[in-house]
Amino acid sequence: MSTDTPTVLPIHIRQTAPFRWDGVPLLAYKEEGGTQFNGVTRQVLFGGSGQLAAQLRYFEVSSGGYSTLERHAHVHAVMILRGGGDVLVGAEIFPLVTGDLVYVPPLTWHQFRATLAEPLGFLCLVCAERDKPSRPTAAELASLCTDDRVAAFVRV
Amino acid sequence: MSTDTPTVLPIHIRQTAPFRWDGVPLLAYKEEGGTQFNGVTRQVLFGGSGQLAAQLRYFEVSSGGYSTLERHAHVHAVMILRGGGDVLVGAEIFPLVTGDLVYVPPLTWHQFRATLAEPLGFLCLVCAERDKPSRPTAAELASLCTDDRVAAFVRV
Repeated sequence: MSTDTPTVLPIHIRQTAPFRWDGVPLLAYKEEGGTQFNGVTRQVLFGGSGQLAAQLRYFEVSSGGYSTLERHAHVHAVMILRGGGDVLVGAEIFPLVTGDLVYVPPLTWHQFRATLAEPLGFLCLVCAERDKPSRPTAAELASLCTDDRVAAFVRV
Repeated sequence: MSTDTPTVLPIHIRQTAPFRWDGVPLLAYKEEGGTQFNGVTRQVLFGGSGQLAAQLRYFEVSSGGYSTLERHAHVHAVMILRGGGDVLVGAEIFPLVTGDLVYVPPLTWHQFRATLAEPLGFLCLVCAERDKPSRPTAAELASLCTDDRVAAFVRV
């Protein structure tokens, strides 16, 4: 995110509807498609101005949906804002409710799933300068799935 | 915040009560006291590990309370999580409700006030490496207070 343009940011951004903000576009989770993720939207709340070393994004996963199973060197700092679900971090699965925090360490496989009837919405804080995620190779996926609980959890 | 100790952070931190988190200490807003602020607590949710270029803190201002009137080169990226109130940013006062976002530009005077019956709780994102805040000199305060609305708002 090296968009170092001297953007003038608005000082006050109203929440115009639950989990929508004035002038903040609702974006696709990622540009590429396929089955690697399902029912995820992204809104960039802060960052990319060059004055903040981090970005704060709001992601929402619709009921039954999931984020990409991936890992990267940069860390994630997450706060659940809406609903709940489950997250895989490494080889552990954690149930999530609103208000919970999740820290994803470097180079650790992770995937969020909206396993409840309502959407799973969360803030995700990342460094502005960060590496690209990678998805598991067939061998890495096979290794992950030697754990039956993980095998039953992951969506690819 | 140059505490670059290789801390192992927990992956999942439960919200144990509204706006309290498992193992996250409830801190004083600042070490110094006096009348510059009133009724403010601080919890550091993420940051200081050396792996994140930012810190995410949760501040709560009790009804009638206020944060310090101050400015600094680093920016604030804020999300209101609880209640509402008002914020002064520069020479403007903005009413705040839960879900609103506030961006405090560099070197801009700012003060949060919990003007409603309930507490004002907010996330505040800052760069991990940042300068110290400064409070207004008598001359700066006099200059700020040439605006009657600002004069009526600020607490020092």
